[in-house]
Amino acid sequence: MSILVVGSVAFDTLTTPSGKREKIVGGAATYFSLAASFFTGVRVIGVVGEDFTKEHESILTNRGVDTQGIEHAPGLTFHWTGSYSGSMNEAKTLGTDLNVFATFSPKIPAAYQDSDFLFLANIDPVLQLEVRKKMPNVKMVCGDTMNYWIADHTDNLKAVLKELDVLLINDGEARMLSNQSNIVKAAEGVLALGPKSLVIKHGEYGATSFFSNRAFPPVEGLAGITPRPFRAPALPLAEVVDPTGAGDSFAGGFYGYLASQPVFSPEVFRTATFYGGVMGSFACEKFGTERLQTLTREEIDARFETFREISHLS
Amino acid sequence: MSILVVGSVAFDTLTTPSGKREKIVGGAATYFSLAASFFTGVRVIGVVGEDFTKEHESILTNRGVDTQGIEHAPGLTFHWTGSYSGSMNEAKTLGTDLNVFATFSPKIPAAYQDSDFLFLANIDPVLQLEVRKKMPNVKMVCGDTMNYWIADHTDNLKAVLKELDVLLINDGEARMLSNQSNIVKAAEGVLALGPKSLVIKHGEYGATSFFSNRAFPPVEGLAGITPRPFRAPALPLAEVVDPTGAGDSFAGGFYGYLASQPVFSPEVFRTATFYGGVMGSFACEKFGTERLQTLTREEIDARFETFREISHLS
Repeated sequence: MSILVVGSVAFDTLTTPSGKREKIVGGAATYFSLAASFFTGVRVIGVVGEDFTKEHESILTNRGVDTQGIEHAPGLTFHWTGSYSGSMNEAKTLGTDLNVFATFSPKIPAAYQDSDFLFLANIDPVLQLEVRKKMPNVKMVCGDTMNYWIADHTDNLKAVLKELDVLLINDGEARMLSNQSNIVKAAEGVLALGPKSLVIKHGEYGATSFFSNRAFPPVEGLAGITPRPFRAPALPLAEVVDPTGAGDSFAGGFYGYLASQPVFSPEVFRTATFYGGVMGSFACEKFGTERLQTLTREEIDARFETFREISHLS
Repeated sequence: MSILVVGSVAFDTLTTPSGKREKIVGGAATYFSLAASFFTGVRVIGVVGEDFTKEHESILTNRGVDTQGIEHAPGLTFHWTGSYSGSMNEAKTLGTDLNVFATFSPKIPAAYQDSDFLFLANIDPVLQLEVRKKMPNVKMVCGDTMNYWIADHTDNLKAVLKELDVLLINDGEARMLSNQSNIVKAAEGVLALGPKSLVIKHGEYGATSFFSNRAFPPVEGLAGITPRPFRAPALPLAEVVDPTGAGDSFAGGFYGYLASQPVFSPEVFRTATFYGGVMGSFACEKFGTERLQTLTREEIDARFETFREISHLS
């Protein structure tokens, strides 16, 4: 079943200990779409400028991603400049040129209306809510956000959180959103704001899923039952070339797998968390989307088995 | 089979967000011994002062720990004062009164000579090496250290590392010891210094075991084979009352389980890493050794199953 994703399609200029790349295709919606495309159909809503060519777009269309919802506007594409150093867990932003993204108003093509799964990538919560309202009949809504929206657009973000089946954020964002330093209490605080489930990403340490008692539908025989948290590992990587997009690739693997399954159960959710880690680990291996462009489903499933092997007792 | 442990038996004065305790029994050897005592016999070598009473010592003897190697010296017992705040991942040391520990010279009772497993808790590497040399026939040597010895006693520490079958340290210590920020490269760097295996503890994120190609004996049919790293979870705890001794309790659970097994294989090592996390999680639930004093093997095995449940796919 198809996922509709709204988010940024961008150019990134990146410096990491492994080298530098100028204006390569990036953006949350791009990474998410590529990662999810290995599991299910993906449709993108976003905006690019006149400098975004057919060749740039082919990174998505080569993977079968439906790009008719990417608006081509007069002006330049959103351009982010950043660098990483040390343990590379956090990017240093050197420049954010919003360009055509500054006036982005999401338009949903008629052909996208039958999408069953909605992903609200990290953009202004006002836009996230607008798209959600335009897609009232989706089966599931999953979203991302970041510290900027948590700190300065709290009320708008809270309106989005009430709409979410699953929120994906990292440790720092969960602590900030809940004002709790303990991660279990932070998870409880975030779930109380509305999301039925929560995936907290720990970077190189993996991710933990937390569930409210609203997480699973009664048809699963699980109404009112709150499953225990689930901890998925990350693959220890000897070389992280570029962590850009790892979180969005995690989201794509996670949600792509969920959307590909006939039922929604705790086990499917746990497996999805593993696939999230798998896709996040691939994203780090080369610059930008390079690794995701050449990836195969066989490689993904082999790494899934590696994830199982490195974390499971016999 | 019995473990001989050498390390600190101390008084701790602690402040955490949950409260304060004055001069309660602590020390690396204490936590290690209590945690390991649920799996195998434990014999302690350490030193205490005149303020350390039979009642204090009964915390160990009540768990069947052999304390005849604890020397009672004139003066006061080693006394550490510290506090925790925020996410409680790191202690702030407010005072270190070495007292009788300043002139500690380990003496090994004759009855300890047949110990098969040696644990060198975090003390001066000169003393660690001295004890190791006095116990040449043990089957396995496992050790711990800390940033202080890594930074300022590097050569002495390196002599100890060559003697170790397993080194247990945390992320920061692994990075410091190897001068590598990437954790896989850090593990390779540490293993190159001598330990056959390495367990890197990630605090609330669990632990990862790394193996050299010398990790397992040829009798296992594994000579020259380097198993993949193994990632064990930590239990997300809603309340961390006092993290003091969590790392030493991890070591006790890990090594106690290893010493209790008839064979030493990758699967036994992986299971031991899980038991390490289990004992570390219990240690945090109450102040000092309180939780370890009342714990039962049934509770330990129930939590082991919880660890499996929160990290394993069906």
